[in-house]
Amino acid sequence: MSAALEAALNDLVIGNRILANEGVVDAFGHITVRHPDRPDRFFMACSRAPALVTRDDLVEFDLDCNPIDLRGKTPYTERPIHGAAYQARPEINSVVHNHAYEVIPFAVTDNPLSQIMHTAGGIGANVPVWDIADKFGDTDFLVRNMDHGHDLARRLGDRSCCLMACHGAMVVGRSVPEAVRLSVYLMVNAKQLMDVMKIGGKLRALTEGEVKKTREMTDGPRSMDRAWEYWARRAGFDLKV
Amino acid sequence: MSAALEAALNDLVIGNRILANEGVVDAFGHITVRHPDRPDRFFMACSRAPALVTRDDLVEFDLDCNPIDLRGKTPYTERPIHGAAYQARPEINSVVHNHAYEVIPFAVTDNPLSQIMHTAGGIGANVPVWDIADKFGDTDFLVRNMDHGHDLARRLGDRSCCLMACHGAMVVGRSVPEAVRLSVYLMVNAKQLMDVMKIGGKLRALTEGEVKKTREMTDGPRSMDRAWEYWARRAGFDLKV
Amino acid sequence: MSAALEAALNDLVIGNRILANEGVVDAFGHITVRHPDRPDRFFMACSRAPALVTRDDLVEFDLDCNPIDLRGKTPYTERPIHGAAYQARPEINSVVHNHAYEVIPFAVTDNPLSQIMHTAGGIGANVPVWDIADKFGDTDFLVRNMDHGHDLARRLGDRSCCLMACHGAMVVGRSVPEAVRLSVYLMVNAKQLMDVMKIGGKLRALTEGEVKKTREMTDGPRSMDRAWEYWARRAGFDLKV
Amino acid sequence: MSAALEAALNDLVIGNRILANEGVVDAFGHITVRHPDRPDRFFMACSRAPALVTRDDLVEFDLDCNPIDLRGKTPYTERPIHGAAYQARPEINSVVHNHAYEVIPFAVTDNPLSQIMHTAGGIGANVPVWDIADKFGDTDFLVRNMDHGHDLARRLGDRSCCLMACHGAMVVGRSVPEAVRLSVYLMVNAKQLMDVMKIGGKLRALTEGEVKKTREMTDGPRSMDRAWEYWARRAGFDLKV
Repeated sequence: MSAALEAALNDLVIGNRILANEGVVDAFGHITVRHPDRPDRFFMACSRAPALVTRDDLVEFDLDCNPIDLRGKTPYTERPIHGAAYQARPEINSVVHNHAYEVIPFAVTDNPLSQIMHTAGGIGANVPVWDIADKFGDTDFLVRNMDHGHDLARRLGDRSCCLMACHGAMVVGRSVPEAVRLSVYLMVNAKQLMDVMKIGGKLRALTEGEVKKTREMTDGPRSMDRAWEYWARRAGFDLKV
Repeated sequence: MSAALEAALNDLVIGNRILANEGVVDAFGHITVRHPDRPDRFFMACSRAPALVTRDDLVEFDLDCNPIDLRGKTPYTERPIHGAAYQARPEINSVVHNHAYEVIPFAVTDNPLSQIMHTAGGIGANVPVWDIADKFGDTDFLVRNMDHGHDLARRLGDRSCCLMACHGAMVVGRSVPEAVRLSVYLMVNAKQLMDVMKIGGKLRALTEGEVKKTREMTDGPRSMDRAWEYWARRAGFDLKV
Repeated sequence: MSAALEAALNDLVIGNRILANEGVVDAFGHITVRHPDRPDRFFMACSRAPALVTRDDLVEFDLDCNPIDLRGKTPYTERPIHGAAYQARPEINSVVHNHAYEVIPFAVTDNPLSQIMHTAGGIGANVPVWDIADKFGDTDFLVRNMDHGHDLARRLGDRSCCLMACHGAMVVGRSVPEAVRLSVYLMVNAKQLMDVMKIGGKLRALTEGEVKKTREMTDGPRSMDRAWEYWARRAGFDLKV
Repeated sequence: MSAALEAALNDLVIGNRILANEGVVDAFGHITVRHPDRPDRFFMACSRAPALVTRDDLVEFDLDCNPIDLRGKTPYTERPIHGAAYQARPEINSVVHNHAYEVIPFAVTDNPLSQIMHTAGGIGANVPVWDIADKFGDTDFLVRNMDHGHDLARRLGDRSCCLMACHGAMVVGRSVPEAVRLSVYLMVNAKQLMDVMKIGGKLRALTEGEVKKTREMTDGPRSMDRAWEYWARRAGFDLKV
């Protein structure tokens, strides 16, 4: 196993635990990482709560979401969220799917979810919303096949986040820490934006220039490493960043 | 003791602890399981907080709520919530009664509580509300006798949940894990619906077809086992699901 | 030391810890108990956060709030809240003063705080509000002397709770567990009532008869002991109730 | 090392941990202390989450924010928030910068943040808001140089707190415990004020005299020491206050 793969799988376990510990996921939701040496593959845990995922739970899939070797494990149903995103976006290497409680109110109403503060850099204005019913009618909302997955990836476009109507959100990043950071701050930003809507008053919205500059700022290692070390420690991992 | 009974009582202890740990119950509220070998009996803890319930606290009752052998313990007052439900609904095997804080605002106002997201499958639209005062006038709201219990069971009808005015909720399931799952997501859904009402905007409500399909989806073992393993672990039980 | 005094002081330590652990008090707030053998005396911790109070911190005071023996400790400033209440209400044996965060919004606005659910039995409709400024003008809001304390006790009247404008609340009970129970549910009820106000809709208010009957119900040992055992366990005390 | 310096650095570590433990900061935010023996110097941790800061992370800076000896560590970018404040306000000895989630809604809207309760003494009415864009146009909001820092310090004026548009807050105090106390209660007060705004009703606002008297009250050692001992214990430090 290459050092890059070793690091990616290690990050994937930590990413699972962080998402659970920070309240982004509960029993449901998942995170994946693209194979660093084979861009046509990705890794994902078998079907269990992210809080409980260990290294042994990780399974390899091709980008059509076929398992390479299941080793008797049950895979998550919604892996097309991930496979389709990796096909559509060669530059991204990690995908998160979650039902963060604070994000849902924006996924079940027509209220736009927009970045309102600097730490949410990368989220931007008017996060797109994908409604599976637009193309597939009445469903249980699960992204069960590649048709669903490709349709979602199209709605995501070149953005970092996409809401899923009556369901949750998907978030993509160039690395596991980036996808985790965006997932946490999408949730924090949603909570704060709800407070803003509840108290009213005039919003001091970010300009396009500010959206761009905060994205560049939060991308840097100084910001990224600090958050990753912190969240990992809270989730029980003592990293030397 | 049959293996089925052993498993049911074990689930009942775990269910008590999960409900407490996830914030569905505080010092008050209870969960029961029907005797798997004798459908005319059910098990319930003696009168103490669900967080503290152990195997030794469990007592057997007939469906009129008479104890088989109290062993010197004090029973909960409101066991008619459970006995009447088991009489009315032969297919259900577990009943939860709770005062989840997020559910109460729908039990003291005329705002309908409806399922707004896929993980709340099984809850459906317009959860019925039972008001003890309609038939019994001024009371302390407790379901103290079988007349109260039968009246509540009638209002529940064939639904999975029923709110109790100025009091709380009852939830039924075909198993302890199902009744627990519905109780947790009734609470989560209530919290999210309150946020939706507070921020306003147009609700993208579930269609009847979506309500049906999400119910089928959440019923499956893949969803059910994942949540049960997760909640059990959080409550201190290490299960092999 | 009599067994009654031993039990009272033990309850007082546990009550301090419960109030902190349940979020009723933070660094500030206090609880006292009347001397069970000398009704003209009460016990109160020296000036420190309730979460940290131990048996050694307890000091005895007369009902004018003079210390019997300070043993070098610094007393709380606001003991007149307690002394004046014990003078005015011979039947009560425990007093709590707190700044519970959820209660404050009712203490700084003219929104009435009323009981909306059965577990808040004893709180009743329209909890009175005392504003120190009405009689004493601009102050730092602290109840610094017996004049302040008597004025507050008059506003409390024969109720169990009284809000203090821009400051917090006082709660009285016939025992430490009762004063603690009322303090916890005053907070829970306030949080739920705020949710009701935020989501709107028609309130199904308790009738006078229901207020009376829920008060009687929550007064009983079955309800009281269950809550006390639960909160004590959460705060680290393993009681045999 | 003087005893005063030893105490200041010890307080600085504890202050970092308290701010994290009480939810004032997450991975981001920082606190500094002025050198007690050399008022032209201050101490600040290197760039990592406050929850993880240890004594070894502390670095000394001059008031233009140049490091005296970095020892290979990466400094925080936004140290001009601190250096400029120490230059402008000789009487203050500690500065906090945070993005407390409850404070942000007041930093992104035109709703004034004012003290509404006695424990928030020192905060006062209409906390000023600094918008970096007013003078510097589109930025990533970070206070990256002394020009930014001086502009912010001017907006702070002689106040204890200043909000930073779309970003967070700065808080100053004569000691680490004072800056920490003001930071915690700025957050608590913001949360309560949001609840007040959400439920409506007529606000019983503090008078100017009350603002002044509550400031004097909370300044006293009885209040200050009690909170510091409590927060330190919660953050894992057992102090003898």
